[in-house]
Amino acid sequence: MLKKRTSHYKKKLGLSPGSIVYTGDKETQGLFIESFDYNSEFVDKKVHANIEDVFHFKNTKSVSWININGLNHVDAIEKIGNHYNLHPLTLEDIVNTSHRPKIDDYTNYVFIVLKMIYYDKDEQVVTEQVSFILGDNYVISFQEAEGDVFDTVRNRISLAKGRIRTLGSDYLLYALIDAVTDHYFIVIETMGNKIEDLEDNLFTGYSQEEISVQIQNLKREILKVRRAIFPLREIISRIEKNENNFIQDKTIHYYRDIYDHVIQISENIEIYREMIWGLMDMYMTTISNKMNEVMKVLTVISTIFIPLTFMAGIYGMNFDYIPELHFRYSYFILWAIMIALFFSMLYYFKKKKWF
Amino acid sequence: MLKKRTSHYKKKLGLSPGSIVYTGDKETQGLFIESFDYNSEFVDKKVHANIEDVFHFKNTKSVSWININGLNHVDAIEKIGNHYNLHPLTLEDIVNTSHRPKIDDYTNYVFIVLKMIYYDKDEQVVTEQVSFILGDNYVISFQEAEGDVFDTVRNRISLAKGRIRTLGSDYLLYALIDAVTDHYFIVIETMGNKIEDLEDNLFTGYSQEEISVQIQNLKREILKVRRAIFPLREIISRIEKNENNFIQDKTIHYYRDIYDHVIQISENIEIYREMIWGLMDMYMTTISNKMNEVMKVLTVISTIFIPLTFMAGIYGMNFDYIPELHFRYSYFILWAIMIALFFSMLYYFKKKKWF
Amino acid sequence: MLKKRTSHYKKKLGLSPGSIVYTGDKETQGLFIESFDYNSEFVDKKVHANIEDVFHFKNTKSVSWININGLNHVDAIEKIGNHYNLHPLTLEDIVNTSHRPKIDDYTNYVFIVLKMIYYDKDEQVVTEQVSFILGDNYVISFQEAEGDVFDTVRNRISLAKGRIRTLGSDYLLYALIDAVTDHYFIVIETMGNKIEDLEDNLFTGYSQEEISVQIQNLKREILKVRRAIFPLREIISRIEKNENNFIQDKTIHYYRDIYDHVIQISENIEIYREMIWGLMDMYMTTISNKMNEVMKVLTVISTIFIPLTFMAGIYGMNFDYIPELHFRYSYFILWAIMIALFFSMLYYFKKKKWF
Amino acid sequence: MLKKRTSHYKKKLGLSPGSIVYTGDKETQGLFIESFDYNSEFVDKKVHANIEDVFHFKNTKSVSWININGLNHVDAIEKIGNHYNLHPLTLEDIVNTSHRPKIDDYTNYVFIVLKMIYYDKDEQVVTEQVSFILGDNYVISFQEAEGDVFDTVRNRISLAKGRIRTLGSDYLLYALIDAVTDHYFIVIETMGNKIEDLEDNLFTGYSQEEISVQIQNLKREILKVRRAIFPLREIISRIEKNENNFIQDKTIHYYRDIYDHVIQISENIEIYREMIWGLMDMYMTTISNKMNEVMKVLTVISTIFIPLTFMAGIYGMNFDYIPELHFRYSYFILWAIMIALFFSMLYYFKKKKWF
Amino acid sequence: MLKKRTSHYKKKLGLSPGSIVYTGDKETQGLFIESFDYNSEFVDKKVHANIEDVFHFKNTKSVSWININGLNHVDAIEKIGNHYNLHPLTLEDIVNTSHRPKIDDYTNYVFIVLKMIYYDKDEQVVTEQVSFILGDNYVISFQEAEGDVFDTVRNRISLAKGRIRTLGSDYLLYALIDAVTDHYFIVIETMGNKIEDLEDNLFTGYSQEEISVQIQNLKREILKVRRAIFPLREIISRIEKNENNFIQDKTIHYYRDIYDHVIQISENIEIYREMIWGLMDMYMTTISNKMNEVMKVLTVISTIFIPLTFMAGIYGMNFDYIPELHFRYSYFILWAIMIALFFSMLYYFKKKKWF
Ligand SMILES: [Mg+2]
Ligand SMILES: [Mg+2]
Ligand SMILES: [Mg+2]
Ligand SMILES: [Mg+2]
Ligand SMILES: [Mg+2]
Ligand SMILES: [Mg+2]
Ligand SMILES: [Mg+2]
Ligand SMILES: [Mg+2]
Ligand SMILES: [Mg+2]
Ligand SMILES: [Mg+2]
Ligand SMILES: [Mg+2]
Ligand SMILES: [Mg+2]
Ligand SMILES: [Mg+2]
Ligand SMILES: [Mg+2]
Ligand SMILES: [Mg+2]
Ligand SMILES: [Mg+2]
Ligand SMILES: [Mg+2]
Ligand SMILES: [Mg+2]
Ligand SMILES: [Mg+2]
Ligand SMILES: [Mg+2]
Ligand SMILES: [Mg+2]
Ligand SMILES: [Mg+2]
Ligand SMILES: [Mg+2]
Ligand SMILES: [Mg+2]
Ligand SMILES: [Mg+2]
Ligand SMILES: [Mg+2]
Ligand SMILES: [Mg+2]
Ligand SMILES: [Mg+2]
Ligand SMILES: [Mg+2]
Ligand SMILES: [Mg+2]
Ligand SMILES: [Mg+2]
Repeated sequence: MLKKRTSHYKKKLGLSPGSIVYTGDKETQGLFIESFDYNSEFVDKKVHANIEDVFHFKNTKSVSWININGLNHVDAIEKIGNHYNLHPLTLEDIVNTSHRPKIDDYTNYVFIVLKMIYYDKDEQVVTEQVSFILGDNYVISFQEAEGDVFDTVRNRISLAKGRIRTLGSDYLLYALIDAVTDHYFIVIETMGNKIEDLEDNLFTGYSQEEISVQIQNLKREILKVRRAIFPLREIISRIEKNENNFIQDKTIHYYRDIYDHVIQISENIEIYREMIWGLMDMYMTTISNKMNEVMKVLTVISTIFIPLTFMAGIYGMNFDYIPELHFRYSYFILWAIMIALFFSMLYYFKKKKWF
Repeated sequence: MLKKRTSHYKKKLGLSPGSIVYTGDKETQGLFIESFDYNSEFVDKKVHANIEDVFHFKNTKSVSWININGLNHVDAIEKIGNHYNLHPLTLEDIVNTSHRPKIDDYTNYVFIVLKMIYYDKDEQVVTEQVSFILGDNYVISFQEAEGDVFDTVRNRISLAKGRIRTLGSDYLLYALIDAVTDHYFIVIETMGNKIEDLEDNLFTGYSQEEISVQIQNLKREILKVRRAIFPLREIISRIEKNENNFIQDKTIHYYRDIYDHVIQISENIEIYREMIWGLMDMYMTTISNKMNEVMKVLTVISTIFIPLTFMAGIYGMNFDYIPELHFRYSYFILWAIMIALFFSMLYYFKKKKWF
Repeated sequence: MLKKRTSHYKKKLGLSPGSIVYTGDKETQGLFIESFDYNSEFVDKKVHANIEDVFHFKNTKSVSWININGLNHVDAIEKIGNHYNLHPLTLEDIVNTSHRPKIDDYTNYVFIVLKMIYYDKDEQVVTEQVSFILGDNYVISFQEAEGDVFDTVRNRISLAKGRIRTLGSDYLLYALIDAVTDHYFIVIETMGNKIEDLEDNLFTGYSQEEISVQIQNLKREILKVRRAIFPLREIISRIEKNENNFIQDKTIHYYRDIYDHVIQISENIEIYREMIWGLMDMYMTTISNKMNEVMKVLTVISTIFIPLTFMAGIYGMNFDYIPELHFRYSYFILWAIMIALFFSMLYYFKKKKWF
Repeated sequence: MLKKRTSHYKKKLGLSPGSIVYTGDKETQGLFIESFDYNSEFVDKKVHANIEDVFHFKNTKSVSWININGLNHVDAIEKIGNHYNLHPLTLEDIVNTSHRPKIDDYTNYVFIVLKMIYYDKDEQVVTEQVSFILGDNYVISFQEAEGDVFDTVRNRISLAKGRIRTLGSDYLLYALIDAVTDHYFIVIETMGNKIEDLEDNLFTGYSQEEISVQIQNLKREILKVRRAIFPLREIISRIEKNENNFIQDKTIHYYRDIYDHVIQISENIEIYREMIWGLMDMYMTTISNKMNEVMKVLTVISTIFIPLTFMAGIYGMNFDYIPELHFRYSYFILWAIMIALFFSMLYYFKKKKWF
Repeated sequence: MLKKRTSHYKKKLGLSPGSIVYTGDKETQGLFIESFDYNSEFVDKKVHANIEDVFHFKNTKSVSWININGLNHVDAIEKIGNHYNLHPLTLEDIVNTSHRPKIDDYTNYVFIVLKMIYYDKDEQVVTEQVSFILGDNYVISFQEAEGDVFDTVRNRISLAKGRIRTLGSDYLLYALIDAVTDHYFIVIETMGNKIEDLEDNLFTGYSQEEISVQIQNLKREILKVRRAIFPLREIISRIEKNENNFIQDKTIHYYRDIYDHVIQISENIEIYREMIWGLMDMYMTTISNKMNEVMKVLTVISTIFIPLTFMAGIYGMNFDYIPELHFRYSYFILWAIMIALFFSMLYYFKKKKWF
């Protein structure tokens, strides 16, 4: 009855640390490389065919954003890693698509792993890992597949909207992380709506099995999102503490704004958890109440008719000597007794508030 | 079965940080601007038509309180923000009506977001966000709609009641926050009364469905209030720590008084949570006890009459040779046996304490 | 169905901070003022009619204990507060009888709020607030009503028992707090006994409704006591840390002794909480077990007699052609079959351990 | 229905601090005093009749262990306390047999209270308090009654086994505490075995009432042991921190070894707690499953025979005109219908997996 | 009904600290000693017959890894311990196979205890203890039995794969610990799969008893793994803090990588715990739902046929005067009434959604 599964972890078992092994399942993903090089005066947006084309951005004074999709192309990732002096452990983490969100400070760069979260068309929560390298005047981002939450940042750079073009790579990184966290709110909001709908339909709308499946699904979704979001608190507060020189003082307020968001999202998640437990309890109560009602119907009917049936049984006996059988009004008297009994039991159950 | 909802968060998705987007739903609220300018000698209370009319308070030596209702008027808020040198992120937070309570220290002001909480006419908990800017000699407060908890502060300023007129903007801010927290006690007290009533009526007063709905509602209310109040601990203790120079030493004791209140309210909330879980358990027990009683009635009746009915059935059979049928006293003997059985079973159940 | 209640908090809503408003319900309590002035050589015990009579103790070199009962006499409290230079917020807290236990350090005194706890004649937990002002050479205590736990301290002062007469006001305060915490042990012990009794009677002694009411009452009592006792940990440890100069080094060991007590009491309360939850679970199990037993009785009886009744019904039919009806031993054979069936079902249920 | 109990706490109510009041119930225990005086060259083991006989050990340069059994002899304890300059609060705690484990640093000694724990003959957890005074070159231990866990230490001193004879009083104290904690492992192991047995017998071996009583007993035992052991973490880590000069650097590693033990024991206790809660849940599930099975038997039998009995009832009616009664094969056709119905219902329940 | 068990702890009771007592149960395990001596230029791999053969590695400048299997050979362990100057308490811990994972800093070495975890052939979680001594230029590892997770490290040393041959003993220790933690992922992944399978089969695949046994087993496995893994956080972070000089700065990043792994594993364990509790709740709900369904079947059948049977009973009575018996169409009219009743009750239950 057990499913066959391939283990991501067995691939890596016993390899030397820093071995660059792609652990995801998008093995046929093409390699996509784009770059934005800009300052307040110009912007240069390009798509590149070869990884070597983005090597020179290491030395441009303008701010450069290099975005690479396709973590299965480990050769390209190793090449850019070597050029930009990234630690082998950093490269290993970039292609390990199930890594926990984290921040690592190196002397020449800051390494950040995050999760983009969104609902797909089937209303399932999907997470995609994105890694950032923040250097002096560049940001490199790595994604598993195409499609991301950064289009608004691309626009703001292209159109010189907002203050992004006038500021450094630290603000660029902020803008990218902010785009990621802004989408968390959408996920959180959808989750809240799901809980509300479930509450509204607990008593009537859904079948019992549907409800317990939906509650369990919601619990699992919350665990998934919580796990992606919780490490962010520490990541942002470590950026805020500004231990490295890559973040300028005036950008700090922007990271603090993200911190506010993360706290608010975390709080919402905890509240949803409580509400789901409450729902579960309420649902159990509902089942018990329904059972109670079923039992009452059975008991009322049985308790009324079983004694009456017994009486009828008595006068269905074939004894030679049953005096009552021969009285003129026996049958009618018995009916009278039965009807009296029927109504007095009905009255008794009514008084007990059984129906 | 899902309701249509408009997403507050989609409005803001991908906007540049500091974009001033009103996220509430009171789009047609009028703009209301009032000011109090005072010191120990005079008080000047005015209502203004234009936002520019309150610009000069930035430089008056007297204490100035500017209160602005109508967060949908983002232009006015942007204008006053620019004049008073407020950070774009501050302005963004002011009009984001679902922000978490917080404190932000800037070099030229302190920014505080709080929630006013009260029960509306339908006994539903309502929260309204209020933001404060504390500058050197002014306080600006922002609210979404008219109606607030500050009338007592207005009176004390106008009538020179208490020490408010003799002290600075730090004491004014204290008085406003104190007015907000004083109302929390009313909410907390109402909640306590609701729990008490529910306890009193658990066994008799309410129907089963009413009870589980009321318990779930109380849980949700508590979550809502908790979320509004809990961040206050940190806010007040950060004010107390006096990291900025906006709070004078002699005002600290007043903020400590609010801190006491917030701790007491938080404690009450935790106690209510425990009591509601206790109620839930007690209610489940009640349901089980009732089911038990129903089952006993069914069992007593069935257990007594099913064997009797079987006996009657025996002598209703039409076999040619059933000797007992022809004995003179069979019928009466059978009755005797049945009555004996009836009372011995009754005695048995009585002894088992089933009724 | 809702009770009418008067709100304590509405009385204070919007008042200027430091407004001295009595929030209790003993409005007709008389004012009682007593004083003990002593050193190792003499003791002077007096009851005073006017609050002004205790003003001079502020300057006596001997240790003075002033005890005031009757918080409704706000004028007297304001007068003594003014004379002893107490902060308006201190006075407000003294007469706010539902204040949380706390400690406040002022430059000229230490202010402590505690709860005295005891069981009244109806075995209900009662709390009464007591506040202490610790000055250089005096302690002032404030209570809502007469009757307290300090008689043993009064005796020790009067009889020069123990070391109390040889030490300062810091030791006097210790002796008073110690008297309060000593009574906590009595409350805790009574609570433990109640839990033990409930455990002993869970299966037999009490009715089901009594049990769930008693469990809920115990939970409520524990919450009440916990709330009064928990803040004490911090209060005592702040006294221990000796931030102010009112506590001498050699008295510290005595406060540490109270700290031990408070920890032990807190631990007991946590243990009682766990035991009560355990009881609740055990009780639910008991109900389920009983239901199980009831169901088994019903099922055994029904399962045995329903098929037998069916058989009897078959031969009660009036078809013209039922061959068995006319055989000589049909009736006896049927009885044999029925008895066989009866005992084999009995054996089956016995083997299933249903009775 | 409430038991009469004597309150330990009422004995001490209102006494002056430092009053030496024995709170245990072994009032007739004899006084037993033994001493070990030793260094690497000699060992002198004695039993003494009078407390004054051990006074001179205060000044011997050799290491001295004085062990005193019988806390009811408060005079003797007061005498030795005075001679060794113990604080009155220390003496009070020594004879208070329900004290929480703790450590107190005095300038001339360290005072430690621990609990010895073991199972008695009835497999009940028993705790006995033991207090230690660690001075410069002596350790005094106080116990309520004879019988302890120190025989192995006595042996090691007598036989010069291990390094005990070559080291100071700090190592002696370690050896005594180690003997106490070594016994905790036995208790923990027994508890683990009890849980395992309960798990093995949950479905079959024990009656339902036995199981819930055993689970509740285990919970109570765990609470008891937890309370005795948890304070040890802090005690040992405060010894380790070596705030006083009574512990030499080279002994620290030994105390750290005890710390390891205490952590391991605490972890085990937490695991047992979780396992017992798991057991409780599993047991509830078992009851529900059994009820389900009982219900199914009842339903199968009733659902099959009630309609059949109805059919038989129909043809037992005495109407003058019931055409079927007079057909030749009615009876046999009815049997065929009944048998068909019987088997199709059986098939239906089989398909529903009800048996 | 209690099993006989031998106590590991009784063996050690009262022994002098540092007594080297093997507490495992592999008493007949042979002694196996292997060594790897290497630097970037050469590697020397040997298996030794006598413990004395590995004494000289203490002084080689090359890195040496000595691996010893067979903790029952306490003599050999004592000898190597004396030669390498290991503290008696370290030796005691090495052979105590149920020790908690920990780190101890000594002046001449670091001592680490870990647990290797893997599933055996029967899919049971197995743990084996492994201890490490990290000296200046050597690592000694101790295992209870042959078979371990270090083959990949052996390969990397032999084949000069990765950077291991160019670095010191601190990197060797890292590689060994990394091999241990890499296997934790496999265990965690298997556990996740088990939970997923259980979820998939909760409603249909497994019998009720199987499910509750599997849930309890999963809980126990999680507790076991949690206990092995949780102490690792502190161990690694204490290595990271680099309090001793045995870890070089450039190796720190590698230990931080293990730290990431440990956090991720711990998080997964917590998530699994929550999911299992969720499963338990869902399972309880399933049982209740099934009971509900059973009850409904019983109630529908009984409620329909009991009144009908009563009617048939009425006309089976033998009274002399029952007028209806003699009407021509009574029988057919009764059938009509019964069928009408039958369908109206069916309709009623349908409307109540009972089937
Ligand atoms: Mg990983
Ligand atoms: Mg991914
Ligand atoms: Mg913001
Ligand atoms: Mg929470
Ligand atoms: Mg949590
Ligand atoms: Mg729950
Ligand atoms: Mg944003
Ligand atoms: Mg919010
Ligand atoms: Mg609002
Ligand atoms: Mg207030
Ligand atoms: Mg106050
Ligand atoms: Mg709580
Ligand atoms: Mg619960
Ligand atoms: Mg209160
Ligand atoms: Mg009071
Ligand atoms: Mg005391
Ligand atoms: Mg004490
Ligand atoms: Mg606890
Ligand atoms: Mg707990
Ligand atoms: Mg005590
Ligand atoms: Mg004791
Ligand atoms: Mg030991
Ligand atoms: Mg050890
Ligand atoms: Mg735990
Ligand atoms: Mg738990
Ligand atoms: Mg539970
Ligand atoms: Mg050990
Ligand atoms: Mg092992
Ligand atoms: Mg690895
Ligand atoms: Mg890594
Ligand atoms: Mg968790």
